[in-house]
Amino acid sequence: MKYYIDIDNIQNVPKIIEEAIELKKKPYSFKSLGTNKTLVMLFFNSSLRTRLSTEKAAKNLGMDVMILNVNDAWNLEYEDGTVMNLNTAEHVKEAAQVISQYADVIAIRAFPSLTDKEKDKSEFVINSFKRYASVPIVNMESAMAHPLQALTDAITIEELKQKDKPKVVLSWAPHPKALPHAVANSFVSMMKELDVDLSITHPEGYDLDTEIVKDIPVYHDQNEALKDADFVYVKNWSSYSEYGKVLSKDANWMMTKEKLGKAKFMHCLPVRRNMVVEDAVLDSEQSVVIEQANNRTFAAQVVLKKILENLK
Amino acid sequence: MKYYIDIDNIQNVPKIIEEAIELKKKPYSFKSLGTNKTLVMLFFNSSLRTRLSTEKAAKNLGMDVMILNVNDAWNLEYEDGTVMNLNTAEHVKEAAQVISQYADVIAIRAFPSLTDKEKDKSEFVINSFKRYASVPIVNMESAMAHPLQALTDAITIEELKQKDKPKVVLSWAPHPKALPHAVANSFVSMMKELDVDLSITHPEGYDLDTEIVKDIPVYHDQNEALKDADFVYVKNWSSYSEYGKVLSKDANWMMTKEKLGKAKFMHCLPVRRNMVVEDAVLDSEQSVVIEQANNRTFAAQVVLKKILENLK
Amino acid sequence: MKYYIDIDNIQNVPKIIEEAIELKKKPYSFKSLGTNKTLVMLFFNSSLRTRLSTEKAAKNLGMDVMILNVNDAWNLEYEDGTVMNLNTAEHVKEAAQVISQYADVIAIRAFPSLTDKEKDKSEFVINSFKRYASVPIVNMESAMAHPLQALTDAITIEELKQKDKPKVVLSWAPHPKALPHAVANSFVSMMKELDVDLSITHPEGYDLDTEIVKDIPVYHDQNEALKDADFVYVKNWSSYSEYGKVLSKDANWMMTKEKLGKAKFMHCLPVRRNMVVEDAVLDSEQSVVIEQANNRTFAAQVVLKKILENLK
Repeated sequence: MKYYIDIDNIQNVPKIIEEAIELKKKPYSFKSLGTNKTLVMLFFNSSLRTRLSTEKAAKNLGMDVMILNVNDAWNLEYEDGTVMNLNTAEHVKEAAQVISQYADVIAIRAFPSLTDKEKDKSEFVINSFKRYASVPIVNMESAMAHPLQALTDAITIEELKQKDKPKVVLSWAPHPKALPHAVANSFVSMMKELDVDLSITHPEGYDLDTEIVKDIPVYHDQNEALKDADFVYVKNWSSYSEYGKVLSKDANWMMTKEKLGKAKFMHCLPVRRNMVVEDAVLDSEQSVVIEQANNRTFAAQVVLKKILENLK
Repeated sequence: MKYYIDIDNIQNVPKIIEEAIELKKKPYSFKSLGTNKTLVMLFFNSSLRTRLSTEKAAKNLGMDVMILNVNDAWNLEYEDGTVMNLNTAEHVKEAAQVISQYADVIAIRAFPSLTDKEKDKSEFVINSFKRYASVPIVNMESAMAHPLQALTDAITIEELKQKDKPKVVLSWAPHPKALPHAVANSFVSMMKELDVDLSITHPEGYDLDTEIVKDIPVYHDQNEALKDADFVYVKNWSSYSEYGKVLSKDANWMMTKEKLGKAKFMHCLPVRRNMVVEDAVLDSEQSVVIEQANNRTFAAQVVLKKILENLK
Repeated sequence: MKYYIDIDNIQNVPKIIEEAIELKKKPYSFKSLGTNKTLVMLFFNSSLRTRLSTEKAAKNLGMDVMILNVNDAWNLEYEDGTVMNLNTAEHVKEAAQVISQYADVIAIRAFPSLTDKEKDKSEFVINSFKRYASVPIVNMESAMAHPLQALTDAITIEELKQKDKPKVVLSWAPHPKALPHAVANSFVSMMKELDVDLSITHPEGYDLDTEIVKDIPVYHDQNEALKDADFVYVKNWSSYSEYGKVLSKDANWMMTKEKLGKAKFMHCLPVRRNMVVEDAVLDSEQSVVIEQANNRTFAAQVVLKKILENLK
C-alpha cells in the first residue's frame, strides 16, 4: 500500500481484513518492522479513539510516534499565489515537505467546514499534504472520508457475521449539531467491497452523495429498512444537498431496542445516548460498539504495516 | 495491587516505601516488566510534576505512554439516563471501556468543582472510570485524594527522619485561590499508616473531613502545634464546611523560618513564595520540597510496578 | 559540550558541522548513547519544526522524550522576593530544580515580549532555568538567540557552498507582524565562525544589536548588498532601536528571483509567501529552505550527542 487516503487504496479488502484479524491475535509480532521509523500524527481537530488507537497501532509495530496539534502551532495556507499578509503563517507546500523529512509516515485528521461544499469536497487539506509530502499519508478522517473507521467496521462485521451475506442497514439518527458525512460515506463505500446486502435509511433531505450511494436501496421508512437486519449502523450526518444544515432532529429516528430487532448495533463513537440511540441498546449484548472501537487499533495497524512493507 | 485509587489500596505501607527506595537506587532494573504494556494518562486538569514524574516512572519500567488532555477532545457525560443533547459528546461508559482496550493501565487527574460538595465527594470521574474500565486505574489526584503525593511524602519522611517516631505537623497556609482538600486528606490518611506523631493546625472554619481526621489532634494556635516538630507539611485548602470558600488569607499563617524551628519543611508544590511560605524557608537546607518532588517518580514507579506484577 | 544556550558554547564550529554531516549519513549509529536518558522539552511558545526535529533528534539517539506545553500547566514566577499572590503559581527556582530530576537534558523555547527590551535581553526564562537546573539546558529559541537554527544554517552552507569563501548576505524582508531578532542575531554570530564573506542589508531603523554586528558591512541599498551573493538569507525582524516596532512593510524589500541572481535562497521557516519572498524563488531550485529544515534534526542531534557524551 502506498498511502491510505480512501478505501480504494486497499487492493484486496478481504485479504486486508484477514491480516488485521491475524494482527489482533498477535499484535507485537511485527515489532521490528517499525524500528527507526516515525509516524507523525497531525491533528487539525480533536480526537480520542483515533488518536489513541493509531498511536497504539504504530507502537505495536515498533514505530516512534510524534504528535502535533497543528492549531498549537499556526494556521497553514493552502491557496496558490496568495500574498500571505494575514492569518496564515506557513504554506502547506513548505509544511508538508518539511514534516516529511522528520517522518516516515504522516497521518492527518482534518474535518470539513460544513459551510463550503465544493471546498470540502476538494479535500484540500489531506490532498495538499499528499501532493507535497514525500512520505505516505494516512487519513485519520478528512472532510469526506474516514477510511480507518470503515476498515474497522468491515473487520467487525467479518468477525461477527453469522451468515454468508448479512443484511446491513445504515440508519440516520438525530443529533444536536451538524456533523460531517465522512463516516457514512466511507461505510457505504466499504460495504460495497464486502458480500453484504446493504441498504440506507434516512429522512427526506438527507441523501448522501449520489456518486457514493449509486444503486444502494434508500428507504425513508426506517422500520421497513430495518426489517430482518443483521447489522444496523447508526450515524448522524447533516444534509448534503442543503449542505451542512440540520433539517431534522426528529426523535422518532433514534435507534431503540424495539426497532433494532435481533440485529447487532454498530456506531463509530462518540455517541450521544438517548439522542442517537437509547440506553437499552447500548447497554445490551447486541451493541458491538466497544468491539468496533477495539478494532480501530488493528485497522490502523494493518494499514501502517502495509505501508511500512511497501517502504522497504 | 489491583489499582491505586486511594492509599488504602496499599496492603503494606512500610513494605511499599522500602520497595520505592530500592527502585530509586536502581530505577531501570525492572525495564522488561513494562514491555508491550501501555499507560494511558488522562488529564482533565493541568499538571507539571504529576505529568512528568508519572510518565518517567512508566518509561523507567519500559512501558509505552500515551497522554491525552481530555479537554482537547470533548466533554464526557457521567449521569445515567441523560438525553445527551447538550454539551457532552460521549458517555464515560463508552470512553472508559474503549480506552481500556488501548491501555494496560489508565491514570487519571480530575480535580473537584469546589462548588458541589456531595458531587465532589462522590468522586464521580475516577469512580466512573473504575466502574467501567477493564484495566487498573491510578489516581493522579482526584477531587478528594492525591495518593501518589501521599506515598511520596511517606517515602520522604522515611528517608529523612532522624528519630523513630518523628513529630509531623500539617499546617494550613493562606492562598489567593480556593484549593482542593485532596493533598491534605491523603497526607493525613497516609501519616496514620506510619509511626509518626501527627497533628494538624489551621484557622477556625478550616476543619478537614472529620471522617479522615478522626482523633488526630487539631490546633487553632499554629505556634503551639509547631512546637518541637520534626516535619512541617504546609498546605492551603479551602473551607470544607463552607465548601470551597476562602474564609481567610491571614498572612500570619504563612510559614516562616522562625516558626519552623528546626523542622524539615515539606510542600507538594507548586508553592506560592511569600504567600504560603517565605523565601527564607524554601531557600534553606530545611526545605525538602525538591527531594519530595524527586520521590514522585518512585512513588508512581512502585505503584505501576505493583500493578504490572498483578497483571501477569 | 556542557549546555547549548548560545553558539559560543560550541568549542569548534567546523568540527561540529562535520560531525553533524556524519550523523546525517548514519542517524541511528549512536542509538545506545541515549538509553535511559530523557529529554524534557518545555514550550512557552508554539513550534512545528523545532518541536518535531528536536524530538526526532533525541529519539535517533535513543533518548526518551517528554514534552510539556508550559502554558497548559501554569505561569511561572521569575522575580526574586515576590509575594506570589497573583497570576504566577510556581517559581522557576522550584520548577527548574524539580524538572531536572525527571530529565537528563532540558530544552526550552521562550520567545521575547518585544515590549521590554532590557527584560528580553536579560534572557530571564532560559537563564533562570540554566541557573536553577541541575542538568544541561538546550535553547530551542530564546528572546535573543536561536542557536540550533544557526547551526542548521552553518551545516547547510557548508554542504552547499561551491567556493572556499562564499558571499553570504542577510537580507531583511517585510512582514505583517513584529518578529524577534533571535534568528538574525544567531545567524550573524554563526557566520563569523565560518570562512564566509558576510554582509547585512536592511532599511534604515532596522539595525541589529551593534554588539553582535560589530564590523560586518551593513547596506541600506539591498541591490548593492546582493550583488554576486552566493547565499541570501532572508528574514524579517522588528526594529531593535525602536524596540519591537514595525517601521516598514515596504514590499520593495521582498526577495524576488530577479534580485536573488544566482544565489541560493535561505530562510528558517515558517515563511510568508509573496510577502517575505515571491513564489518564484521558493518554487525554484535555488531555494534550499527544505534542506535547511532537514538539517534541523542533525543540528539538534549533534548538540544532544555532545551533551550526552559530556554527561558520562
